[in-house]
Amino acid sequence: MPSKKLSQIGELNLLKELQKRFKKGQHNILIGIGDDAALLKPPKEDILLTTDMMVEGVHFDMDYITPYQLGFKLVSINVSDIYAMGGTPRFLLLNLAMNKNTSKKVYDSFFNGVEKAIHYYKVSLVGGDISSTNIGMTLSATIIGHAKKHIRRSGAKVGDKIYVTGNLGDSACGLALLKNIKTPIPLEKTNILHSKLLAKELKWKDTEPLLRRHLLPLARNPKRYVKYATSMIDISDGLLIDLSRICDESKVGARVFIRNIPTSPGLKIAASYLGISPIRLALSGGEDYELLFTAKENKKIRAIYIGDITESERVVIDISGRKRAFSAEGYQHFGAYR
Amino acid sequence: MPSKKLSQIGELNLLKELQKRFKKGQHNILIGIGDDAALLKPPKEDILLTTDMMVEGVHFDMDYITPYQLGFKLVSINVSDIYAMGGTPRFLLLNLAMNKNTSKKVYDSFFNGVEKAIHYYKVSLVGGDISSTNIGMTLSATIIGHAKKHIRRSGAKVGDKIYVTGNLGDSACGLALLKNIKTPIPLEKTNILHSKLLAKELKWKDTEPLLRRHLLPLARNPKRYVKYATSMIDISDGLLIDLSRICDESKVGARVFIRNIPTSPGLKIAASYLGISPIRLALSGGEDYELLFTAKENKKIRAIYIGDITESERVVIDISGRKRAFSAEGYQHFGAYR
Repeated sequence: MPSKKLSQIGELNLLKELQKRFKKGQHNILIGIGDDAALLKPPKEDILLTTDMMVEGVHFDMDYITPYQLGFKLVSINVSDIYAMGGTPRFLLLNLAMNKNTSKKVYDSFFNGVEKAIHYYKVSLVGGDISSTNIGMTLSATIIGHAKKHIRRSGAKVGDKIYVTGNLGDSACGLALLKNIKTPIPLEKTNILHSKLLAKELKWKDTEPLLRRHLLPLARNPKRYVKYATSMIDISDGLLIDLSRICDESKVGARVFIRNIPTSPGLKIAASYLGISPIRLALSGGEDYELLFTAKENKKIRAIYIGDITESERVVIDISGRKRAFSAEGYQHFGAYR
Repeated sequence: MPSKKLSQIGELNLLKELQKRFKKGQHNILIGIGDDAALLKPPKEDILLTTDMMVEGVHFDMDYITPYQLGFKLVSINVSDIYAMGGTPRFLLLNLAMNKNTSKKVYDSFFNGVEKAIHYYKVSLVGGDISSTNIGMTLSATIIGHAKKHIRRSGAKVGDKIYVTGNLGDSACGLALLKNIKTPIPLEKTNILHSKLLAKELKWKDTEPLLRRHLLPLARNPKRYVKYATSMIDISDGLLIDLSRICDESKVGARVFIRNIPTSPGLKIAASYLGISPIRLALSGGEDYELLFTAKENKKIRAIYIGDITESERVVIDISGRKRAFSAEGYQHFGAYR
């Protein structure tokens, strides 16, 4: 029997199902899904609020991503913004505008991904809105979090060291691979034949982490860095654009050493196969969801040192020691670059 | 000089402009627009959270609504959900997915409408997300509010009276008029020649309130009803569907008297001109953004009594005394009716 379309099920029935599925939540939820608004007990700590959208044809393409991955990623990118402030994510609201011909199977897979993510990050789904569209999908999520101590973009000081929390460029390379492969890869399933999808030059063990980073990104928990960080941001638009944001807000410059930028072995292999510069991917690819932060030098900081905060010059220093000025290079909506 | 397109301005510049424009806010905003997340001082009262979407081609049609009206309405419909819980709206997040060819003029008008609404409702814009789309517009807003005492959908008791706070059907009739006129009407401007747009049979003084109710709806403040209400909801999908929600959650029935349903003189005139039943518009039209609530009988309640909560039967009683069972009739996404 083919899966029903959402239009055959109806909004009220979909909402009732969600209400049942996501009933269990934290003890400080007074009202969850199903009334005009959710009701929460007031926290003792400061409240963090963030919201992020994913638009079909702009942020994702159903030719390259499974509905499960889309659900997981939507939660992750929002959690990442709360983490970037040094906070703890707590409550989630979802807005889904889905085509009325979407199958119930696709819809269910999407919510399987959401459910996996909310368990992983320990957040509770407390509300949202579902609508039909005549066109493509638009998704958004809002996360409410708490922070005992928060870290802004504006706290970097001249002389601070610049750190990142993991490899850069993998996600952008993963996307480039997907565009090359031209098919979604259900990484969430364990028994698929990945090898068929790849060129002979590429091994699954090298490419899988790149694809995973793009399709099922894990937001980086800031817990071990909060104590040290003077400023922080998550790398969503690319290292240089996000570092520029820290520089702008902190009114400082930055010097980044290319030789210090952490990249994975798989990135070099896959980028070479695709004919793309791995450094360009690492500097400007985006969607890394690693943390970028500044701190006074301290041996206890378990992150990768990539450069220093300067008075005003913003430069990248390449392997042969040449300086190149950088501006915010990275993905920006509505096209213009500063 | 023609207005620039958003794609010529760029996301960063648009965000900087918003940051400047919406800088002033309440004193309990620690961080507003411009970091990874907004930061608010924790309130003493319980927290209300709600989010609502508006999708082009589903919730609105740019042939009938101005960008200003869209901005104003987006805020109003979200405020209405906080009001429906008996709460006070405080903070606003906006998500805009707009076509990259949208003109700056349209974008600015949209934010003029948002600004007017946030002043009217005394809420502060603290964050959001802007994205380009290749297709139509999708907008969503999230509002965070506070409540000293909250009112659920589930508190109606057998014998309670049912009240509404104002005329019903005007908004749906306004939309029907707009579809007939086939042009947006900039009600927000004072010096336009309205008369040209209307048929000879209709007077501007009768139709303007209907159009206004649809295009620039004002969410109904629950202040004077909170003390009395046992259950409450805002009428967004139509009286009968929203009353069914109260009945479902409260596990009761309802008896509604058609003769008591408040309608405006303009509704009768315009509905007759359009050949639509005014009662059908009032019962099922939706987008009224009036409050529907139940309470023990009390002469101090300054709202319109329309019926009673019953044990289980759900009936509408027409002018000649005939009973008709009702189910949730009203607009529902994904098509299905219960």
